[in-house]
Amino acid sequence: MTDLKIILFGTSGAVPTSTRNLISNAIIRDNELFIFDTGEAIQQSMMKNKVGMNRPTHIFISHMHGDHILGLLGLVQTMSLLLRDKPLFIYGPPGISRFLKSNINIFKIKLNFKLIIKEITPGLAVKTKDYKIYAKKANHSILNYSYVFIESNRPGKFYVSKAKKMGIPEGSLWSKLQNGKSIRYKGKLIRPTDVMGKIRPGRKIGISGDTRPSKSLTRFFSSCDVLIHESTFSSEENDLAIERFHSTSEEAATIAKESSSNILILTHFSSRYKDTKPLEKQACKIHRNSIAGYDSMSFKVPYRDEKRLTKSYVLEQTSR
Amino acid sequence: MTDLKIILFGTSGAVPTSTRNLISNAIIRDNELFIFDTGEAIQQSMMKNKVGMNRPTHIFISHMHGDHILGLLGLVQTMSLLLRDKPLFIYGPPGISRFLKSNINIFKIKLNFKLIIKEITPGLAVKTKDYKIYAKKANHSILNYSYVFIESNRPGKFYVSKAKKMGIPEGSLWSKLQNGKSIRYKGKLIRPTDVMGKIRPGRKIGISGDTRPSKSLTRFFSSCDVLIHESTFSSEENDLAIERFHSTSEEAATIAKESSSNILILTHFSSRYKDTKPLEKQACKIHRNSIAGYDSMSFKVPYRDEKRLTKSYVLEQTSR
Repeated sequence: MTDLKIILFGTSGAVPTSTRNLISNAIIRDNELFIFDTGEAIQQSMMKNKVGMNRPTHIFISHMHGDHILGLLGLVQTMSLLLRDKPLFIYGPPGISRFLKSNINIFKIKLNFKLIIKEITPGLAVKTKDYKIYAKKANHSILNYSYVFIESNRPGKFYVSKAKKMGIPEGSLWSKLQNGKSIRYKGKLIRPTDVMGKIRPGRKIGISGDTRPSKSLTRFFSSCDVLIHESTFSSEENDLAIERFHSTSEEAATIAKESSSNILILTHFSSRYKDTKPLEKQACKIHRNSIAGYDSMSFKVPYRDEKRLTKSYVLEQTSR
Repeated sequence: MTDLKIILFGTSGAVPTSTRNLISNAIIRDNELFIFDTGEAIQQSMMKNKVGMNRPTHIFISHMHGDHILGLLGLVQTMSLLLRDKPLFIYGPPGISRFLKSNINIFKIKLNFKLIIKEITPGLAVKTKDYKIYAKKANHSILNYSYVFIESNRPGKFYVSKAKKMGIPEGSLWSKLQNGKSIRYKGKLIRPTDVMGKIRPGRKIGISGDTRPSKSLTRFFSSCDVLIHESTFSSEENDLAIERFHSTSEEAATIAKESSSNILILTHFSSRYKDTKPLEKQACKIHRNSIAGYDSMSFKVPYRDEKRLTKSYVLEQTSR
């Protein structure tokens, strides 16, 4: 059982407001931190949410617009001042390396930790035995990557009673079966499926960055447990959304619905919306499980086979 | 009668805290905005304080450390997104121009307004008929400018009764006297001082940036109405203050006292201090009118000849 938590560090697009920091989303899985975009003041939001500055951390940048990146320098500087010693991985489109290196040089920031910057192309960005993270070109005014975080499937439950009934002795043979390997016992072939339940799916989280909706993104976000999608504008501002390569609340909800995603979190709101509830309402008409995100909103995502992730379960955890 | 207001946009040094933004101070005189350092999230603090993004604005940077500057890019970008049309003046040490230009280039920020960047040397930085702003080298690990804002003196009060008693007819002759020129009337020389009160002093505000205390800074801050001085450490951390080229609360208070400044505002606190009241207490033992600054603290500074600026007058205006 590995905890997976989502935290919204900032939910504003382009310009912050007095109550919303610029865009930044995070996943914490086990002790590892995955940050998607680093809007200004992310470091303060991390402090408020007691995330800490020395976790194993991967940062993914969607695109080279200031509102999505400008908190990165302060974050790197603060990590260094607070004596981070773990390497920091930063992934993003071309330009991210020049931005970091030139500013670290201008401010003569002395890093105590290794900074690994990877300018990535679409496709697999990170892979471990526990998860994979993929980038996909979205549809914005400049190159923007949407990301998905896909947790590896877990093997099915091991039924001790079944194994015992078949007379298989506890020990190395059980381990082999648990690790997905068939065994031969007393001349008989025994497959993992003979003593184990169905493979249990890992969790999938999608993060849109800035984008117009598209069919290929819908496929990319297929069956997300949680889809964090930009909703810069309300449906009334459809023309603006098209002009500025953004999505409306209805468009985000349509992507969530058509991708068979479960919970939709709307974010990256234009500063014109003091109240984002009307955008949530618009989205809910299309995709019932839609929630307007807000700064420091955080909730755990359960495994699908253990608990159903419902809107009310999210809201229970995040009572404002 | 011209209003002059001080606002602290951020009061943290090096690293922000969950309640303190990074360092930034402002003076608003009439409609003009003067910002001293631009720590991360200054734009949000400006929004909270309803300062607006399109005032005539001069920004003064003390030194090229990230905690004093990193909010500048977001501020410039937001001003542009919100369609600022007035020129923006930025003054600072060498390096500030490269920082701004290279990042504006990286993010392809399209400016709607004229950006005038001046890398200054110590001495007079700005002069108008209403005020002068001077920079002085402080004593930090890298080149740091302290600044003083000095308002021009106002002429003394014009005593109508005296002018009438001397038989001088209302009109151009009165104007000449009011503008400080002597006149000849019915063969007699009449000096402005014959019909006017004493020259009324303008207000003076000092802002230290990051520095160790010094005799030359004490002279520079001579007779400030308000001195905003860094107090990174409490007196117990004197060794750290020396090692890192900062001041303690007692040192800030000693500068305030020896410069015959009136109100001392302590700021740029190390993130180790959750409560800054103990630092205020230490300062008050040396300079009674000392106040620990906090984010969004703001107060008006009256003319010396109209109202005495006392600590209680400041606190009345700034009830937390």
